[in-house]
Amino acid sequence: MSAAPPPGGAGKQVLIHDASLRDGHHAVRHQLGRDQLRAYARAADTAGVPVVEVGHGNGLGASSLQVGQARLDDDEMLSIVREALQNSTMAVFMLPGWGTTADLERAIAHQVDVVRIGTHCTEGDLAERHLGFLREQGVQAQAVLLMSHMASPDRLARECARLVEFGATAVGIMDSSGHYLPADVTERVGAMREAVDVPVMFHAHNNLGMAVANSVAAVEAGADILDACARGFGAGAGNTQLEVLVPVLERMGFPTGIDLYGLLDAADLAERELMPAPPTIDSVSVVSGLAGVFSGFKTRVLDVSRREGVDPRDVFFELGRRQAVAGQEDLIIEVALALKAARGA
Amino acid sequence: MSAAPPPGGAGKQVLIHDASLRDGHHAVRHQLGRDQLRAYARAADTAGVPVVEVGHGNGLGASSLQVGQARLDDDEMLSIVREALQNSTMAVFMLPGWGTTADLERAIAHQVDVVRIGTHCTEGDLAERHLGFLREQGVQAQAVLLMSHMASPDRLARECARLVEFGATAVGIMDSSGHYLPADVTERVGAMREAVDVPVMFHAHNNLGMAVANSVAAVEAGADILDACARGFGAGAGNTQLEVLVPVLERMGFPTGIDLYGLLDAADLAERELMPAPPTIDSVSVVSGLAGVFSGFKTRVLDVSRREGVDPRDVFFELGRRQAVAGQEDLIIEVALALKAARGA
Repeated sequence: MSAAPPPGGAGKQVLIHDASLRDGHHAVRHQLGRDQLRAYARAADTAGVPVVEVGHGNGLGASSLQVGQARLDDDEMLSIVREALQNSTMAVFMLPGWGTTADLERAIAHQVDVVRIGTHCTEGDLAERHLGFLREQGVQAQAVLLMSHMASPDRLARECARLVEFGATAVGIMDSSGHYLPADVTERVGAMREAVDVPVMFHAHNNLGMAVANSVAAVEAGADILDACARGFGAGAGNTQLEVLVPVLERMGFPTGIDLYGLLDAADLAERELMPAPPTIDSVSVVSGLAGVFSGFKTRVLDVSRREGVDPRDVFFELGRRQAVAGQEDLIIEVALALKAARGA
Repeated sequence: MSAAPPPGGAGKQVLIHDASLRDGHHAVRHQLGRDQLRAYARAADTAGVPVVEVGHGNGLGASSLQVGQARLDDDEMLSIVREALQNSTMAVFMLPGWGTTADLERAIAHQVDVVRIGTHCTEGDLAERHLGFLREQGVQAQAVLLMSHMASPDRLARECARLVEFGATAVGIMDSSGHYLPADVTERVGAMREAVDVPVMFHAHNNLGMAVANSVAAVEAGADILDACARGFGAGAGNTQLEVLVPVLERMGFPTGIDLYGLLDAADLAERELMPAPPTIDSVSVVSGLAGVFSGFKTRVLDVSRREGVDPRDVFFELGRRQAVAGQEDLIIEVALALKAARGA
């Protein structure tokens, strides 16, 4: 197909970071196997996707009873994807606490190209040691702020500036609960763009049907790197749909260097081989997105709400008002009991 | 839940037109039964959805071997939904040619509140007679232009002005092939808004993941009526997801008068009772959206491409270049043979 002339993008290149083999793991309880990793990595590589991220959904070192044991260990996942990639670079994700410097050393031994260190949006300090270590090792060290809707644009901008001081070669935000509308993204990415002179990234979730629109808004506000997943493969409402985002960007004048037919083939393969079904936006996704609550709470909220006889939607909205963050699952019971008591009063 | 203060909408009311029981029919070969129509209409009514549209996917009088025979005839569909609605108004759709004045008379006998007459985007003249008839009968007579990306904003504005002269009480456009990006919608709806002083409507499809964002863009450009379907229920990539659109509008300061929990309940019922699975954006949907081709061509394009050994994606893009419209299915074979010949040359 012939490309349309760039109407607005003026030819600015966007770097697509394919998180299918990491964030998608959340949708299949981290059970992707060897053939699946190999086949998808090859298809993405063939399409010219520049960066392929792989690993347990919660990153290096996270495989555990608490958040789910991956079918394959980190070493095996990295070695399979490394071998499958001819041109694409390989990326991994790590949350300090789950992963350690030893995990980074292991990833470096597998010739990882890009390491992302994630922290809660106001806790960038936790990434300092690992970012420093990665810079010493000469590995691209990106820093990403999770649940970023819980911090103001100014706070995110200051956090990003500090992450660059720590050695981050790129900084960005995740809309972990799929809460943003495009204007929210414009404001936040704009503030971050002003605050740093390294590439800025953005990672969306589709709870409010805005993943593609929010990603476009991020680029228009100055983002350089966008995350996306084949068919949106990811937990709950899923991530930005990769093979939709890329042609939309190209049409708007933001080239990606990715071959459209190759990308559609990779997405078809992903739908066929990796997932039981592509993600859709169910009612719980809408509510958790509106409430700004981590979608990983879903199962627990449904269980506790059924037991206590309260509406899970009320629980989500109250968790949002209380600014619950991942790890605060105990709050679910507290909220459900409070709602039950309030109803009885 | 408490409503957030309106940031941009300044309290402008948006009229939501629920097309689930008409456009959704395309996804189930027009096979919705009595209990399904009744249950969904009641749930939408309970949620306070102001308008519920019902009928064969192609509208009044369209049930046929050529586009599919509906399980129920128009009379039965209208009588079931009429009885189920306490507060919502009832709407029907008609394409002149499929439907006739006799069909309109029958719908009026069922106390239909709103009739929409649809034509190809440049063929508004075809609606003149029926719009005039409806105005004489005192029925709200809306006019909608299909495949609207094939006409310029100016042309659409002129077409809408004529439709108002014919008696249309509201005018609008459908993005029948899901081709628009938000800026396209802003430009078109803005031009229409300038040209007429009746309500303007917009109807999206989600081929490029932009249905919600495009609908919001339409309202911001002056649209008053938005179409949407529960879980996006509709052909191919589906329509704007109703229960996502409504809270997004409310958050942006555009009230709809619809109860969120009731709406989520209706959407859950729709997913459970009306559809095999919610629509997702497959690769053919992406290509037909990019190419601007009617998604109803899908099965035929896939069949012909397989037979002639050509890539269906090439067929879609070439159909788009040739500006194929619904009814020109013969062009599919012509294009496939041309591509095959070009390859052999």
